[in-house]
Amino acid sequence: MTQTKDLSPVAEVEPAAHAHLCMPEDSRKRASRRLAIARGHVESIIRMLDDPHVYCVDVLRQIKAVQGALSGAGEVVLRGHLEAHVATAHERGDAHEIIEELMEALKYT
Amino acid sequence: MTQTKDLSPVAEVEPAAHAHLCMPEDSRKRASRRLAIARGHVESIIRMLDDPHVYCVDVLRQIKAVQGALSGAGEVVLRGHLEAHVATAHERGDAHEIIEELMEALKYT
Amino acid sequence: MTQTKDLSPVAEVEPAAHAHLCMPEDSRKRASRRLAIARGHVESIIRMLDDPHVYCVDVLRQIKAVQGALSGAGEVVLRGHLEAHVATAHERGDAHEIIEELMEALKYT
Amino acid sequence: MTQTKDLSPVAEVEPAAHAHLCMPEDSRKRASRRLAIARGHVESIIRMLDDPHVYCVDVLRQIKAVQGALSGAGEVVLRGHLEAHVATAHERGDAHEIIEELMEALKYT
Repeated sequence: MTQTKDLSPVAEVEPAAHAHLCMPEDSRKRASRRLAIARGHVESIIRMLDDPHVYCVDVLRQIKAVQGALSGAGEVVLRGHLEAHVATAHERGDAHEIIEELMEALKYT
Repeated sequence: MTQTKDLSPVAEVEPAAHAHLCMPEDSRKRASRRLAIARGHVESIIRMLDDPHVYCVDVLRQIKAVQGALSGAGEVVLRGHLEAHVATAHERGDAHEIIEELMEALKYT
Repeated sequence: MTQTKDLSPVAEVEPAAHAHLCMPEDSRKRASRRLAIARGHVESIIRMLDDPHVYCVDVLRQIKAVQGALSGAGEVVLRGHLEAHVATAHERGDAHEIIEELMEALKYT
Repeated sequence: MTQTKDLSPVAEVEPAAHAHLCMPEDSRKRASRRLAIARGHVESIIRMLDDPHVYCVDVLRQIKAVQGALSGAGEVVLRGHLEAHVATAHERGDAHEIIEELMEALKYT
């Protein structure tokens, strides 16, 4: 667990081409709050797994619940991106690029 | 199991009916390791979100990556459950119940 | 659009609020071609199921393959929508509505 | 569309190793019925796409609805497989192989 501190888990992903566009502050705060809840939930599952009597299906359900929370965080980010950057793309003149980039990011859902 | 009652984020989920069956130790350790990595990844996304210049699509990609890690943890747990409990259900005489329970848990993928 | 009211299997879904916007012709043709392939694939699974010796896992794999084909059709439609309608939404002045509508439609992925 | 008749869309997938196990008749009939409904639904979307005034989001929603129907068919098949083949695997002595095979098939969800 402490071991994960050494990993730079974001290192393998290249910054996106449109990284000069900033995330709307409201999305940023809301996504952060949801992720903090998801983190607490992951921690509680790790504690569950210390108990040798824990039951597989209880763990599966908790993992599904965290996945739901992460999807919620992802939705907040996507909505902010659509509003702040995609809806204005035609005016800015980069619609094609920004949509390819988004489709690529959504593929791994 | 009873322990999960104290944890707020998991409180809404009732213990499963077959909670007397224990999770195989190997699955438990491996799921725990994967969740520890996922937790570190969630933490790094929360830190990313402190930066007002962060870009939405970079955050979206990181969230997808964590979702992939959680799916991996879920697979470990599911495989252990199938081997330890489902494959022996006919002998034990609770095949119908254990499969209903599993189908219900998988529904929320 | 009004036409969809006659079709029984699609009857339960209301036409979307922005139904005055038309789908780009290229997306329409490409989505149609992919759906025709998916339909042929569904037909072949139905034929497989006539064989009393068919094996569950073979059927499961075929169903996954069709789901992949449908996701591909959905991607074609989404990309066309983002390019034709979402990227121009700020100019048109309906960004908020069109994004809410899209987020709602994506929810059931 | 007629073109799809030439494709043998099931050809690319190898028969599973446990193909000597037969699918339970009840699952077979129920999966077949659900797939017939899904096929009708796909056909109605193809007809929708003949209308140049069709709206992207209406098509997206219909595609999601078919994906839901296919998931339902997949659940029927999975449940039948778990009951007929996985729950008896320990007695039959092929638990490890049948579970690997299933995990592999579920991966592409």
